[in-house]
Amino acid sequence: MVTIVWMHETALEPGKLYDLKLATRDLAGKVTAIDYQVDVNTLEQRHADHLDLNAIACCHVELTAPVPVDDYRTNPGTGSFILIDRLTNLTVGAGMIHCPLESELPYEYREHDSKARVVWNRTSVTQAMREQINGHAGKCVWFTGYSGSGKSSLANALEVELNRRGYHTMLLDGDNIRHGLCKDLGMSEADRTENIRRVGEVARLFAEAGIIVITAFISPFRTDRDQARALFDDGDFLEVHVDIPLDICEQRDPKGLYQKAREGQLDDFTGINSPYEVPKAAEVRLKTTEFNQQELLSQLFKIVM
Amino acid sequence: MVTIVWMHETALEPGKLYDLKLATRDLAGKVTAIDYQVDVNTLEQRHADHLDLNAIACCHVELTAPVPVDDYRTNPGTGSFILIDRLTNLTVGAGMIHCPLESELPYEYREHDSKARVVWNRTSVTQAMREQINGHAGKCVWFTGYSGSGKSSLANALEVELNRRGYHTMLLDGDNIRHGLCKDLGMSEADRTENIRRVGEVARLFAEAGIIVITAFISPFRTDRDQARALFDDGDFLEVHVDIPLDICEQRDPKGLYQKAREGQLDDFTGINSPYEVPKAAEVRLKTTEFNQQELLSQLFKIVM
Repeated sequence: MVTIVWMHETALEPGKLYDLKLATRDLAGKVTAIDYQVDVNTLEQRHADHLDLNAIACCHVELTAPVPVDDYRTNPGTGSFILIDRLTNLTVGAGMIHCPLESELPYEYREHDSKARVVWNRTSVTQAMREQINGHAGKCVWFTGYSGSGKSSLANALEVELNRRGYHTMLLDGDNIRHGLCKDLGMSEADRTENIRRVGEVARLFAEAGIIVITAFISPFRTDRDQARALFDDGDFLEVHVDIPLDICEQRDPKGLYQKAREGQLDDFTGINSPYEVPKAAEVRLKTTEFNQQELLSQLFKIVM
Repeated sequence: MVTIVWMHETALEPGKLYDLKLATRDLAGKVTAIDYQVDVNTLEQRHADHLDLNAIACCHVELTAPVPVDDYRTNPGTGSFILIDRLTNLTVGAGMIHCPLESELPYEYREHDSKARVVWNRTSVTQAMREQINGHAGKCVWFTGYSGSGKSSLANALEVELNRRGYHTMLLDGDNIRHGLCKDLGMSEADRTENIRRVGEVARLFAEAGIIVITAFISPFRTDRDQARALFDDGDFLEVHVDIPLDICEQRDPKGLYQKAREGQLDDFTGINSPYEVPKAAEVRLKTTEFNQQELLSQLFKIVM
């Protein structure tokens, strides 16, 4: 909200772009709405759709770029500006800032599909500010593959190497997350989808915190992985397919789960009685039978760092 | 797994504590199980429940403290040890380490109430290691209070100040989390409980990542907050009660929600038709009507930093 004094014979037009000089900054902006004009004799407020010479009015101004401003009462120097006609280069008005919009409304209405009534609370500390403290960007390294393919141990080895190099990391492991955040979910298709949905959201929060978050979940369904990917900016979601044939995972069977599934003790076991959809465009495909762990880590480093 | 050569006339007893010298370290430990004894003439493996003089056997050894060890084949110097009788101080045996247990089993069975079949995957990078990269401890600052009490803006102001001082922070805001992780949840009592349960779990993950995580949720139920607290080590969960009378929140009504609730348009609105359980032992109680924001932040800093 600003008070504008109009100083030119050509009337102020809402919606028209003017140049603004605000302290040392040159900007462009427009009056988006005239709240009311003030009668300088009676101090009455009245409706106006343009401002003639010497008119004073309370208006909303929108700038083409964000700029730090102050309230005029706090700091007149950085709380006032002049308006310049872009064609004639003449000073046509002067303004005093009352309250910058952001402090007026600390939230905004965003489109959402939440079951609750919610606004979006504006927060001041950004991902970029957190990344600056960290010294590196936040992103997500998403491992996918059969049970027993080696996701957890590769994810762990990757985290060890990143930590050793001073990167700030977090590991979200499928089994471990099911002890806490997702302990209410079983292995049905719907529960698996919800499991991956939550992990995607949490991973995004970690990336927002400027952390390299590593996830190790079977995540068998392509659409679930793609929905996780959609939460990230381009390049911040790195899908790693731990590509090892099912029969080798079954031979290894480190936790004895394949045997139980074959014996009919486990429903919905990926590869046996629940599908695994191979990634079509993973950023990395690790052929774990052909390379040793050090070679696999080198392949990962090429895309992570 | 270790191979032990027994060098004394008094037999090795599983379960008995011996002193071990391993490289430069003095430790105590016991043989928990003899897998098999090796016949030195035929190389046959046979069962044994003790080891006589000159016996060679594959055993499991448990130490009273964790210690870095190597595989004997990789590094004989730090992969071997001698056993000393604690009473006579005589060297009674020698051992070679085959595979430290951790690399043998990268997971363990932990008690859990998950609906899925899960193990606990051991991870190598710890909270302490992440905190070392960060330069400060991870913890949770948990704001609670009525809608409109100022939780979000105080949480935001706290994060700004912490970020300015170089602390690594993350803000989980009630409204914003309901756009993503908790968008499937409404405002019924059960859904509120699940909402806070998930937020507690995610906050714990952030603390594990070495981050000061700030949460701003109404979190009206005491048991829900206590369950979140229970996920943290003592002193790592700081409950902040934004204590402002309901009628003042209702006068402010920044989002117009109290009015809607009074008009019967909103069910389960805290303070109107859903209870708020005041914290009994919050670490901080902020009387927001009596102090300005700078004073409130000072009160917060005293417990956070």
